[in-house]
Amino acid sequence: MLFFTQCFGAVLDLIHLRFQHYKAKRVFSAAGQLVCVVNPTHSLKYAPTRCAAAQASTEQGILPPCHHHEAVHDPQLVPCTCPLFSCPWEGHLEVVVSHLRQTHRISILQGAEIVFLATDMHLPAPTDWIIMHSCLGHQFLLVLRKQEKYEGHPQFFATMMLIGTPTQANNFTYRLELNRNQRRLKWEATPRSILECVDSVISDGDCLVLNTSLAQLFSDNGSLAIGIAITTSKVHSSEAEM
Amino acid sequence: MLFFTQCFGAVLDLIHLRFQHYKAKRVFSAAGQLVCVVNPTHSLKYAPTRCAAAQASTEQGILPPCHHHEAVHDPQLVPCTCPLFSCPWEGHLEVVVSHLRQTHRISILQGAEIVFLATDMHLPAPTDWIIMHSCLGHQFLLVLRKQEKYEGHPQFFATMMLIGTPTQANNFTYRLELNRNQRRLKWEATPRSILECVDSVISDGDCLVLNTSLAQLFSDNGSLAIGIAITTSKVHSSEAEM
Repeated sequence: MLFFTQCFGAVLDLIHLRFQHYKAKRVFSAAGQLVCVVNPTHSLKYAPTRCAAAQASTEQGILPPCHHHEAVHDPQLVPCTCPLFSCPWEGHLEVVVSHLRQTHRISILQGAEIVFLATDMHLPAPTDWIIMHSCLGHQFLLVLRKQEKYEGHPQFFATMMLIGTPTQANNFTYRLELNRNQRRLKWEATPRSILECVDSVISDGDCLVLNTSLAQLFSDNGSLAIGIAITTSKVHSSEAEM
Repeated sequence: MLFFTQCFGAVLDLIHLRFQHYKAKRVFSAAGQLVCVVNPTHSLKYAPTRCAAAQASTEQGILPPCHHHEAVHDPQLVPCTCPLFSCPWEGHLEVVVSHLRQTHRISILQGAEIVFLATDMHLPAPTDWIIMHSCLGHQFLLVLRKQEKYEGHPQFFATMMLIGTPTQANNFTYRLELNRNQRRLKWEATPRSILECVDSVISDGDCLVLNTSLAQLFSDNGSLAIGIAITTSKVHSSEAEM
């Protein structure tokens, strides 16, 4: 009897998983689009003082010493840019991706257009959802953050950073798109370089910003699907008119 | 001497006006697009109790009595929907447009695509920028509101309402687009009927919402240009996939 009960439970689980996958796929239109389910991570620490140093970053990928590295160090080294942890690691820009994958277990996805499906949107702030996105010969970091800028009023902030220099970042445009309940919200911008601090991009509000009520309108059963597309930059049509 | 000084002043004013017009025209790409400069209006009164009644609106365009009309009244009458004033007027839906034009001096513009140029974005909340938009055989009311939902943190809310019933509103899709500084933000939704209350649409956050920092990024010398387009509804592609 117990055996049959367990079998029935397993079948129910499979049906539930299949249903979740189907829901994730149907959120965006492109049939072949890769859907990546991203689970939340509670930020262990926000380190604003690290950002103050990052603001002085130069075009060469050289950052001033971190506040947690008082010793003399190689100016070509970049501190860990993972926004989740106050991580003591530093290394060259070229090895940031492998550090993020290996140490922080951040997934990397291929493809010009993907769907980022952030689960458990109801979790309290601060919470982050992070993936890396490999596209057009470069790697990008997508950060969705739930944060209380005004106490008691959590908001969602989404931005894309290039794992490269600001000059390289200027060659691209990224688009984030939400589409549900007969509403559509699109944000297009030039990605910021990972040498700039993700915390300051979010505190400046220079990214896609969602109030909780709008996030709920775009969510489906506690999950928010964000369509992501990256293209090589072209001057925005209106500005070309100038 | 005074005459020459005054002439010089007048020439400077003309140059300034010409420059403002040029700036307004170049914000959006379509060369033939109509640019409407909209000056702000300080809201004289927000009347949330009026909205509570409006929530109970029916498909027939019948609204329950306003709190300021205690007398028996014709249930076919609609109270004044102008969000600026607590106006005692009420009349049939068909004459709302002429009331808004004549009594509240709200401009009406023709064309499927227009540019709404809201001036003096720095003015303190609460402030409204309002126009009517005539398109596809119907009239729409565009409301941009600066309001402090969280004390000390003003935000901008933009929405479009059909001067018609909810069923008529379901036949349309409106798009609001901001485009400046290599950033683009688009909001697409079904317009709400003017029988629903604009105050409740804004307090629900079911509209385009801009933080002050983002509004500044999209502004040019204190003016915010919003591209507006209205189309007849089609099911959003992603939802057609379901």
